[in-house]
Amino acid sequence: MRRFFGKVINNNFVLDDEDFKHLAVLRFGVNDEFLGICGDEYEYTCKITKLDKKSAICTILSKELCKQNPKKNITLFQALPKADKLELITQKITELGATDLVIFNSEFSVAKANINKLARLNKISVEACKQCGRTIPLKIHDILSFDDMLYTLDNYDLVLFAYEKQKDIIDLDLTPYKNIAIIIGSEGGFSQVEVKRIYEHKAVLFGLGKRILRCETSAIFAVGLVSYKIDN
Amino acid sequence: MRRFFGKVINNNFVLDDEDFKHLAVLRFGVNDEFLGICGDEYEYTCKITKLDKKSAICTILSKELCKQNPKKNITLFQALPKADKLELITQKITELGATDLVIFNSEFSVAKANINKLARLNKISVEACKQCGRTIPLKIHDILSFDDMLYTLDNYDLVLFAYEKQKDIIDLDLTPYKNIAIIIGSEGGFSQVEVKRIYEHKAVLFGLGKRILRCETSAIFAVGLVSYKIDN
Repeated sequence: MRRFFGKVINNNFVLDDEDFKHLAVLRFGVNDEFLGICGDEYEYTCKITKLDKKSAICTILSKELCKQNPKKNITLFQALPKADKLELITQKITELGATDLVIFNSEFSVAKANINKLARLNKISVEACKQCGRTIPLKIHDILSFDDMLYTLDNYDLVLFAYEKQKDIIDLDLTPYKNIAIIIGSEGGFSQVEVKRIYEHKAVLFGLGKRILRCETSAIFAVGLVSYKIDN
Repeated sequence: MRRFFGKVINNNFVLDDEDFKHLAVLRFGVNDEFLGICGDEYEYTCKITKLDKKSAICTILSKELCKQNPKKNITLFQALPKADKLELITQKITELGATDLVIFNSEFSVAKANINKLARLNKISVEACKQCGRTIPLKIHDILSFDDMLYTLDNYDLVLFAYEKQKDIIDLDLTPYKNIAIIIGSEGGFSQVEVKRIYEHKAVLFGLGKRILRCETSAIFAVGLVSYKIDN
């Protein structure tokens, strides 16, 4: 069944503007059903009861807990890369089971932090949810400074740090951990000072094999692998 | 050290046209050194001995076996997706350790097969090699019909088939296998008849977790995971 994003208000499902337009383009009509998702953990089976050119009234017939949401917390800490890479990362890690994305500034980041980008990333994650069967999009946090990023790491029970000079892929048993941070550098990697500071924040260094992966490949593959190892 | 692609002729390294232009843009001069790669398993340390606006003469100082090439054969059999996805897949699976890419037509492929695309894919893989440290690019085969693809599977000692209705990720020990095929569908997936025919070709069905991944995410993640499991 087709999925649309919106809000639950009383027992009605109110489509977001763009999703309403999409529903109209797809020629949905009165009595047609769809799955509504609104960012909580449920899928809502909805039926269109009234439809005109500007809006739809959709009754919620039933709701069911969505089994496709990640059960554990995987947060990607991504040093700011170029915009197109960030968009690719957002889409792919939503599919692969990350729960949070924290973008932070680092010494060798060439891109400029732009808070306006976050709305676009959020939209990309919502679209990825609709496609992959999740109902809770990636939580995209405000862009952090390197120092603030370090403080935030204290909230995690495991901090994995993809370090280019480390070749060994994670062989740790990850199943006991419920709140995992993965740190990935930007195109330029990290400075020696930054590496030392991350390492001192009880981070476990790991590699992603014998080749040098691009930053977006590292992020996608690391999230996929961790998610696989904890069945997220 | 910077890497450039070219050919070995006698004891000289002859840069490809585009790589010569790139070397010029980067203001390389006489006596500067670089790593030459030519698609075989060696890295050639080269020194520019003569340089003008149209060509460079580069002497090979030494050659060394490249440790970043995959040791085992991983072939991705990818049902023809849209062009931009194919380009992304080519770049990422080069980084992640696939050796061969076979594109084939399937019933629900919406894109049209275009032999001209293959040269572009080859170029993308060469660029990915230079960046990730491999010297042998992905071998990109001619586009096959579905039937020819099936016959080709007989050459592999393990055929893994990513099937959307299967949720379990590969838990097989892959280390004994040296020649692994991974089959991934296009955006539209496979028809029931196609699934049956692949299954009958001794394929092992596997899933990629509880969410429905886009075809390019499936290809990238499946190659990364198999490569990880056999240390490729």
